[in-house]
Amino acid sequence: MVLERFMDKYIPSIENELKGCLPPETTYPERLHEAMRYSTIGAGKRLRALLAIAAAEMVAQDKFPLIESATYRFAAAAEMLHAYTLIHDDLPCMDDDDFRRGKPSNHKVFGEGLAVLAGDALLTETFAVMMQLADMGIPAATVIALTKELAMAAGSRGVIGGQAVDLASEGQTIDHEILEYIHTHKTGALFKAVLRGGALLAGASSHEIEAVTEYAECFGLCFQITDDILDVVGDESKLGKRVGSDSGSDKATYVSLYGLERARELAEETMEKAKAAIDAFAPTNRVLCELAEYVVGRDH
Amino acid sequence: MVLERFMDKYIPSIENELKGCLPPETTYPERLHEAMRYSTIGAGKRLRALLAIAAAEMVAQDKFPLIESATYRFAAAAEMLHAYTLIHDDLPCMDDDDFRRGKPSNHKVFGEGLAVLAGDALLTETFAVMMQLADMGIPAATVIALTKELAMAAGSRGVIGGQAVDLASEGQTIDHEILEYIHTHKTGALFKAVLRGGALLAGASSHEIEAVTEYAECFGLCFQITDDILDVVGDESKLGKRVGSDSGSDKATYVSLYGLERARELAEETMEKAKAAIDAFAPTNRVLCELAEYVVGRDH
Repeated sequence: MVLERFMDKYIPSIENELKGCLPPETTYPERLHEAMRYSTIGAGKRLRALLAIAAAEMVAQDKFPLIESATYRFAAAAEMLHAYTLIHDDLPCMDDDDFRRGKPSNHKVFGEGLAVLAGDALLTETFAVMMQLADMGIPAATVIALTKELAMAAGSRGVIGGQAVDLASEGQTIDHEILEYIHTHKTGALFKAVLRGGALLAGASSHEIEAVTEYAECFGLCFQITDDILDVVGDESKLGKRVGSDSGSDKATYVSLYGLERARELAEETMEKAKAAIDAFAPTNRVLCELAEYVVGRDH
Repeated sequence: MVLERFMDKYIPSIENELKGCLPPETTYPERLHEAMRYSTIGAGKRLRALLAIAAAEMVAQDKFPLIESATYRFAAAAEMLHAYTLIHDDLPCMDDDDFRRGKPSNHKVFGEGLAVLAGDALLTETFAVMMQLADMGIPAATVIALTKELAMAAGSRGVIGGQAVDLASEGQTIDHEILEYIHTHKTGALFKAVLRGGALLAGASSHEIEAVTEYAECFGLCFQITDDILDVVGDESKLGKRVGSDSGSDKATYVSLYGLERARELAEETMEKAKAAIDAFAPTNRVLCELAEYVVGRDH
């Protein structure tokens, strides 16, 4: 399996890159840096980082070595940004989750105040890390385009907008339109930014960017539908969080809206659409195709 | 008074710029955008924006019109970033303040969850706004240098680091070293970044940057000592927050450490040092000199 080799190859590089990008725990104030690293290093599937690298590699092909270091740096920035969203989402005033990635959530270990600050710091340092791309052979104009895209995806009309609507819809009956808004923004926007970002780093043409964008939108949808299915049928220990925690608090999901069977069909259909979107890149599209299959087939 | 004319001229421009930089309240999700605008527009002394503009004008002199629009944009970004720190600082898990700038704090109006998100969004959009400088005649490399400086100043080794140590020192007896760390980071780092940023926009030489940095460090100290004094002797309605709220929760201040008289002397001495640092820019250093006098002389 191409994806397995890809993960074996790149996940250690991502971890290394993250360790280097984050301030060390020995730097004052140590407890803040400990909190930042607790929720970022050695945790999670690294899906966003892998998507960024896979997109860059697919587009750059044999020129990938030229942008390899910069791609790792960008991938690490994306993972830092993602980690901040998880810390803030888990706060008692938000989704109030005590566990994340199989261990106590950040605020359970470090307290709410420091968890807010650790999230703030990860978000801020994400942009400091993005600026470093300019010292790694990426043209300044590309760094700026990439950073603008990431900030817009993460902002009030992206990830944070999705979380705000999710928060407001708690305990409410919501329709399909709002459900879709939440998912395309809360989760989808960052997937899109890392995939397009990887392609931008590789100097993709506007035609290629379009194809990657179409893939990204389908990928995001696959991911969310599968997440909703797993929340109902998943195995608690594998998922690392309380099963049914979303449905228990009256949150809208694809399963509650369409039923389990139709949700599964939808996930499969969308996965096929994702793969079709990047057909023209064959054969270097293998990893992204398998990543789409992977998110639909995963059990956690 | 030069400063008065300066404020009359620029504060309306800053407000206008902020209104244009923030997503409109009519944009979905409306309540999130309302929360973002509530804590940013029409509030505060705009000290950070004024410092950025004053530094840019002092350095650029008759070339200021060439960078005027970009300077407003940068000043607005700095005010957005500052507004996010205030929203998060006021949260119950942080300083737990119910009032800010003479009105109920963000979380009292919008709830804690949305207040966290509004702060997150202001921080994120700050960087989107920074990227716009590249479309306004500022060289891409300067935009990147400026953004790196802002992100580092706002990050875990800057503003957030200061707030983390402040949070950890609540109810503790702290020494002079820690008090200074808190102030130079929590408040001073952003002052320094906006002043140096304004100078960078104006194409300052390294010698000029050095002078502005020295001014910035003294200015930050003046500001904090005066803040501590006002917290003891200030008038509640003018300050817009509960007088003695910091000392009441056992926070270290310059007054508790040195006494009121010595604190007042320290503020005066530091103000003179700030003014001396930018002596060579005379006569275009008038506004920054009067700004240093203003923060020491203010009653709120």
